[in-house]
Amino acid sequence: MFEKFKQVLIGKPLQNEDIHGQKYSVFLGLPILSSDAISSVAYASEEILIVLIPVIGALAYRELGYLSAAIIALLLILTFSYRQTIHAYPNGGGSYIVASDNLGAIPGVTAGASLAVDYILTVAVSISSGTAAITSAFPNLFPYTVPICLILLLFIMLGNLRGIRESSLLFSIPPYIFILTMITTIVVGIVRHFAGIAPHVAALQGNPMPLISQPVTIFLILSAFSNGCSALTGVEAVSNAIPNFQKPQVKNAQRVLLLLSLFVLVIFGGVSILANFYHAVPQEGNTVLSQISYSIYGNGPMYYVVQATTAIILLMAANTSYSDFPLLMSLISRDGYAPRQLSHRGDRLSFSNGIIVLSVIAAILIVVFRGSTNRLIPLYAIGVFISFTLSQFGMFKRWITKREGHWVHKAIINGVGTLVTGVVVLIIGTTKFPKGAWVVVVVIPILVFAMLKVKKHYTSIAKQLKLEPEEIDAAVIDQTCYRNRVIVPIESLNRASIRALKYARTISDHVVAFNVSIDIESGEKVKKNYAMLHTDIPLQVQYSPYRKIMEPLLEYIESEEYNYKKGDMITVILPEFVVEKFWQRILHNDSGRQLSGQLMKYKHIVVARMPLQLKGDGLLFRNAKKSYKNND
Amino acid sequence: MFEKFKQVLIGKPLQNEDIHGQKYSVFLGLPILSSDAISSVAYASEEILIVLIPVIGALAYRELGYLSAAIIALLLILTFSYRQTIHAYPNGGGSYIVASDNLGAIPGVTAGASLAVDYILTVAVSISSGTAAITSAFPNLFPYTVPICLILLLFIMLGNLRGIRESSLLFSIPPYIFILTMITTIVVGIVRHFAGIAPHVAALQGNPMPLISQPVTIFLILSAFSNGCSALTGVEAVSNAIPNFQKPQVKNAQRVLLLLSLFVLVIFGGVSILANFYHAVPQEGNTVLSQISYSIYGNGPMYYVVQATTAIILLMAANTSYSDFPLLMSLISRDGYAPRQLSHRGDRLSFSNGIIVLSVIAAILIVVFRGSTNRLIPLYAIGVFISFTLSQFGMFKRWITKREGHWVHKAIINGVGTLVTGVVVLIIGTTKFPKGAWVVVVVIPILVFAMLKVKKHYTSIAKQLKLEPEEIDAAVIDQTCYRNRVIVPIESLNRASIRALKYARTISDHVVAFNVSIDIESGEKVKKNYAMLHTDIPLQVQYSPYRKIMEPLLEYIESEEYNYKKGDMITVILPEFVVEKFWQRILHNDSGRQLSGQLMKYKHIVVARMPLQLKGDGLLFRNAKKSYKNND
Repeated sequence: MFEKFKQVLIGKPLQNEDIHGQKYSVFLGLPILSSDAISSVAYASEEILIVLIPVIGALAYRELGYLSAAIIALLLILTFSYRQTIHAYPNGGGSYIVASDNLGAIPGVTAGASLAVDYILTVAVSISSGTAAITSAFPNLFPYTVPICLILLLFIMLGNLRGIRESSLLFSIPPYIFILTMITTIVVGIVRHFAGIAPHVAALQGNPMPLISQPVTIFLILSAFSNGCSALTGVEAVSNAIPNFQKPQVKNAQRVLLLLSLFVLVIFGGVSILANFYHAVPQEGNTVLSQISYSIYGNGPMYYVVQATTAIILLMAANTSYSDFPLLMSLISRDGYAPRQLSHRGDRLSFSNGIIVLSVIAAILIVVFRGSTNRLIPLYAIGVFISFTLSQFGMFKRWITKREGHWVHKAIINGVGTLVTGVVVLIIGTTKFPKGAWVVVVVIPILVFAMLKVKKHYTSIAKQLKLEPEEIDAAVIDQTCYRNRVIVPIESLNRASIRALKYARTISDHVVAFNVSIDIESGEKVKKNYAMLHTDIPLQVQYSPYRKIMEPLLEYIESEEYNYKKGDMITVILPEFVVEKFWQRILHNDSGRQLSGQLMKYKHIVVARMPLQLKGDGLLFRNAKKSYKNND
Repeated sequence: MFEKFKQVLIGKPLQNEDIHGQKYSVFLGLPILSSDAISSVAYASEEILIVLIPVIGALAYRELGYLSAAIIALLLILTFSYRQTIHAYPNGGGSYIVASDNLGAIPGVTAGASLAVDYILTVAVSISSGTAAITSAFPNLFPYTVPICLILLLFIMLGNLRGIRESSLLFSIPPYIFILTMITTIVVGIVRHFAGIAPHVAALQGNPMPLISQPVTIFLILSAFSNGCSALTGVEAVSNAIPNFQKPQVKNAQRVLLLLSLFVLVIFGGVSILANFYHAVPQEGNTVLSQISYSIYGNGPMYYVVQATTAIILLMAANTSYSDFPLLMSLISRDGYAPRQLSHRGDRLSFSNGIIVLSVIAAILIVVFRGSTNRLIPLYAIGVFISFTLSQFGMFKRWITKREGHWVHKAIINGVGTLVTGVVVLIIGTTKFPKGAWVVVVVIPILVFAMLKVKKHYTSIAKQLKLEPEEIDAAVIDQTCYRNRVIVPIESLNRASIRALKYARTISDHVVAFNVSIDIESGEKVKKNYAMLHTDIPLQVQYSPYRKIMEPLLEYIESEEYNYKKGDMITVILPEFVVEKFWQRILHNDSGRQLSGQLMKYKHIVVARMPLQLKGDGLLFRNAKKSYKNND
């Protein structure tokens, strides 16, 4: 049932061989990997203005221009730095790998944790912003922001559980449409502005610009800059995903990175210019982009095309994290820093556990921050810039250590990258700290600590499990130097207990039936019934005034009567009722399940679970037509 | 650790013998069992006025008088009816037992389900109303209604998990203080009113009476009556709890019932008179009782005494359900209509599972209805009146069937009881249906259906487990007619797999080591390592392109090569890592746990869980000082 339902949702299982078909060409890779960076035009300019306008009013538009230029310059530095990384790490050069490889485990894990946090935030921010694009066009939907976010998240999750290939085909066209739409809008907007046809947003809305004009402080500008840096979070994606590219992987990845930067430059720059020309004012329930395109196109079809493609590109951006986060976690997990389950591929060859973890945390963020992009932004971007810095510094150290080829040239590029991104980390950390960045600043060290602890644990376990040479010897297995003794706890005499006793007989000659009675009366009753069996398996009855089972059992094993010898193995056979329906399971095996868990603490006890399948009698007023029999 | 924490919270475990000490005298039983009925004065008059005042204004006070008289008459009928029940059922004559005994299973279960629903509502209503008494005195606390409710609920739950006896001592004095306080207040209030000293509430608050005076309809009066019936929900408690009384149980229970009725009569009647004299007007954040006592006493200490004792008696009322609900559920569970766990006594001899179930559902109700008594009331009382009706009818049928002693006299009393309570059910159902009673009307049949289904299931299981006479024979156990064969799944060669192979050897001569590999390469590696052991246990390697383990294992068992014969038992040995900390458990046994669950579906497979205790390496930067060794 569940299996079928799962197949309808995520498709039939795929074979391991199918993995080779699931690769990106440049044409497919560009939309998937660039959507994060490109989509941020939907909120980056707006988040800059949100900081500036309430303080310096209309002056904000001039500053927006300068800040956009600075962010584009930062983008270019990152692009050149990452081209080198892609070349040096053709098997995938995410910050985690580059930092681990060149700087050691702790910086590597720090880069990994920072990136992981930011991937999760990308999902939350992009979905919230995508929902804002929808509710701007249809204001009636605004009160349902959170449910809309969660439904979209669910769809993206299911899409990704289905696997990469199908996602690619499904998702490759809309980003191109978005790019075209945005370039058209920018051109039309600029032309109309200079032609004097289109009105200012503020004039249109009767929502006049605040006239406050306080002095422009450096802190204010840096706060706005920090918000704007959210535009750059997608750049990392390409270098992380090189193994997903078709051959030649390095060339293809570099091409995608370059195209990505080009599009961000044009669209982000263009939108900032339009915001300036049209004097958009951030307000809840109507995004800046929506205001601008409404000014340009009015309530016509093109306005809705802009909103629709914006929403879609933002969902693609969330999707980018869905290809990156699980891959990153699987790398970290393969190195032993995260639970093994994160490196298991699911039925559809995607890392299902990573996908589910990502979805759950993003859903929590969306609910807590009520789907508001503006409230999420202070947490955003700091993680990715920490990982940028570590990755750049790793590359820098690599060049000055290896000293091969044009290493000076390369070291300068990555050195500048390190410096610039490091400064950005400080700026974001300082300006956004009280507004929410402190959460990230607290969470990343906790994650790093947890990852190191997991690694330590796996290392210690591996050491304990490793066979010494003298243990690798047939004698060790084939000598049966210990006695195997069996205890069969029985509550009353029934088909299940008889079955357990029979089985016990086949695996050992030292079998004891064991009963725990609350009082002497019920103990005597069990003894009497047991005597009717005329078996030579002895019955041991213990009294337990506290109604516990575990303690009397252990007492008995330790008693002189039982005569436990060091090295003996004791098998405890627990009959379990296996019933058909979920609700029926609640009705059984309560004490057995408890006992089973507790016995696992003891080194020389093996717990044998002996299933007895029972018909659950699903229909209410139907009589059980035939009694169920075991064929033994 | 957990065990110790539990002991601090709920005390040390008690022996079965201790149960005899946990009984009520009249002095202890009265406060515990009557608090539900007595405490309802805190809301019953108010809930009547809430319906009347907005429609008929000040006329409401006259109607309140008539309605209070009607409800007190109903109380007297119930008291006489229940005296007979207590006499006829000295071992506990709750509606469930009386209805099951005289009317059959379905009416019995219906009475049980109805009562269970109402016990839960008693907890939610009483705690909400108790919190209202607190927030009336301290209006600053009003916004924290829900958290206060939940904290009080938690305390009551823990108190009850500690056991009945201690609760009794703790809880026996305050109800007497409440009774005294209320009688004092009634007397002082009446005297002051006639002396003309105390002002009207309305005059005091500048909150004038609405002047609307619409016609008094029958529906309106019946709605108000339905709300007032919430005063009678505690009467059932005594008959249900007879086994908890000291000897002579019947006499003591009857005495408590009579005293209970007397106090309800005096206090409920008195408060209705005061509400009339002082013209209290229900309003959110200040209860009617609080308004009255403020009018009488002003902001003096006596006002706070009334509020405090009211809050406490309401918490006692919730506590009444904590002795009744788990007892009722344990009776229902012992008859097989509810999960067995509900009839297990916990460490402290209380029915812990029932207590926890009650608390969780009540907490949900409080959160959903935001701790508002007024919003909960429409769901209340219908359940208890359904059970009254069934119980009365059961008694009626009993007398006319047995025809012993003064049966005609007794049949008339219970017959009148049946008629009156049946009419009340119809009145409550009709008037409150759209306001919330429909929830209860839907839930009770669902519960009845579920209970019958559970019973059907347990009956069917018992039939399947029952031994036929020919099976009770030593030969059945002592003939070992089948082969026991063992499969040891191994992922790689390590200490755990060696241990499992050794154990396998001791329990069978037919052992196979079984490996599932994703591809041929890793399969060959396992084969090579295994060969180094030079054991004669064969290794079977299966390839699983879908990364599944279960399917290849079953395929192998069904293969010709394995040559499974009908009647063979197969023991699958799963090594499990047992680690010290909870978080470490997430890191292990993922596939083993899955496999173990899936294998339980097969009749001839026994799953042997073989624990290997591993040191978890708790400290982060400490090296494992000594490697852990098993002594086998």
